Amino acid sequence: MLFCQGETKYLREIGSELEPVAVAMERFALDSGKRLRPLFAYVGFLGTGAKSAPEIIQACAALELVHVCALMHDDVMDGSDTRRGAPSIHKSFEAMHADKKLVGSAENFGTATAILLGDLALVWSAKMLHQSGLESATLIRALPMYDEMRVELMAGQYLDVYEQALGSSSVDRSLKVARYKSGKYTIERPLHFGAALGSKDPEQLMNSYSSYGLPLGEAFQLRDDVLGIFGNPAETGKPAGDDLREAKRTVLLAKTMEFATPAGQSIIKSALGNPNLIASEIEAAREIMKNTGALKWVEDLIESLTSSAREAIEHGEIEPLAKQYLGDLADIVTRRSL
Amino acid sequence: MLFCQGETKYLREIGSELEPVAVAMERFALDSGKRLRPLFAYVGFLGTGAKSAPEIIQACAALELVHVCALMHDDVMDGSDTRRGAPSIHKSFEAMHADKKLVGSAENFGTATAILLGDLALVWSAKMLHQSGLESATLIRALPMYDEMRVELMAGQYLDVYEQALGSSSVDRSLKVARYKSGKYTIERPLHFGAALGSKDPEQLMNSYSSYGLPLGEAFQLRDDVLGIFGNPAETGKPAGDDLREAKRTVLLAKTMEFATPAGQSIIKSALGNPNLIASEIEAAREIMKNTGALKWVEDLIESLTSSAREAIEHGEIEPLAKQYLGDLADIVTRRSL
Repeated sequence: MLFCQGETKYLREIGSELEPVAVAMERFALDSGKRLRPLFAYVGFLGTGAKSAPEIIQACAALELVHVCALMHDDVMDGSDTRRGAPSIHKSFEAMHADKKLVGSAENFGTATAILLGDLALVWSAKMLHQSGLESATLIRALPMYDEMRVELMAGQYLDVYEQALGSSSVDRSLKVARYKSGKYTIERPLHFGAALGSKDPEQLMNSYSSYGLPLGEAFQLRDDVLGIFGNPAETGKPAGDDLREAKRTVLLAKTMEFATPAGQSIIKSALGNPNLIASEIEAAREIMKNTGALKWVEDLIESLTSSAREAIEHGEIEPLAKQYLGDLADIVTRRSL
Repeated sequence: MLFCQGETKYLREIGSELEPVAVAMERFALDSGKRLRPLFAYVGFLGTGAKSAPEIIQACAALELVHVCALMHDDVMDGSDTRRGAPSIHKSFEAMHADKKLVGSAENFGTATAILLGDLALVWSAKMLHQSGLESATLIRALPMYDEMRVELMAGQYLDVYEQALGSSSVDRSLKVARYKSGKYTIERPLHFGAALGSKDPEQLMNSYSSYGLPLGEAFQLRDDVLGIFGNPAETGKPAGDDLREAKRTVLLAKTMEFATPAGQSIIKSALGNPNLIASEIEAAREIMKNTGALKWVEDLIESLTSSAREAIEHGEIEPLAKQYLGDLADIVTRRSL
């Protein structure tokens, strides 16, 4: 089945009021995105040596819709205006409210719609998995991994929101957020999900996947943090220095505050959470991150975590082609540009 | 298993930061609530004549957590400060932010937390169902009803949000919202879910359930709308006249605007969406709803819809005890106080 086509058709049948919802869901889910979670799930499946089938691909693709929910809700929580170079969902429905001269607060309408579209994506994901055509026994083996992945996502998101609200910086706490949001949710659990799809006795393989996925997930989050400050907007789809503007409490930030002089610390502090940040202020913060050695410290940590991940698969009983893909994916998720 | 106990234990193991989340989830899910959707699901199951078992009860209870998600997100979308006589989730986390003197906007922190807790409730619901201990074949029969129910909820919620934003009143459109939000989500689909749990060939029974559930669901929503204006705060858990304050576009409102004189219409219009509404203004609006005959029109419609629902079960092939329960539930969900 074409990704979510039946679902948007159903929305349109309920009524023309739902046309903007159908269009927004199609665009958001189909226009772009790296598809990392389905990719890891599929490679996790291949690692078992089982033979692929269309229902396996559909089951893996269902993970992408969990991520659609996460992104839509994340943008509301962070107040992010852009996503993948386009207006975020709440912003685009806020604009629709203004265009159609609807009554009440356009901002509240945008928020409400983004909450509901995210919920719908989460429900569609489960429906897509449930109706993938997997044999009952296979589906039932994979469901616990799927559920754990979603619980860990929500727990990780709360840890992240709470960390921002603490307003202090701690390398340990930021790494814990990274472990739940990225280590588990993005890499370890999708691999486990794939292993459960392909094997009746995946325990040993799952251990190898954990040893690979947890450090690599942290490295992925650290790379994301570096790109949030140093990334090229044309590649990240977010404005330059966006993590400063949003005062994201990252490992890079915590390490910078630890290493910086009081003068440097106050430059960083005044940039954090400033919605009107200008290019020279972003550049000044970047210089401090470089000159203090904080950036290098993070780059070294990314490298060492990625090496641990690579070693973990060397010794695992993983089908050779999957092993090669896992190596390639380790490069892709930690490389210096998107 | 005790409802969601294992889940909150897991949150606490992740870290003490999650303690407030665990406490809020336990209170919200366990302190009160009418449990209508689990009740309808269980009666739908009993209607098949199958014998009950603990896993059936757990599967039905899982529907309550979908509703926990709906309420938490609904309160954010409506900007409602209270739920069941206590602060709504976003308000209680907003207060925690202030108490702990956290940084950033307390309001945004409250909103973010309520979005995540709602998401978590939705995921826990699926997990509770998946792990209920149902036989695979039974689970797989029930999943499509479960998924449809959740899609219809989200579609109905969007129709509702959009209807509020249109700012006009239409009986037809308000009834359509009631059909999705209450007819399908609250009654028809839970009954179908129960039927699928109990029978391998539930088609005829499901037809009877639809003929009962859709009109009764509309009647339930109409009763809710009447209580939103005329309800006793001690029973509804919401302030008096709350639907006026939130400018809810209900059938009662649409009919009042249709029947009222221009002078009456302008009194109603000035009350709608006024956050500082006082008791005499609520009373004036109530009088207009009574004197125009709009309230009676809605009461008559509730009665006729409830009669249709009752007739539908008279002729259905439904196990007698379940038939009696369905009759009782028709009273409960449409009676004049909560």
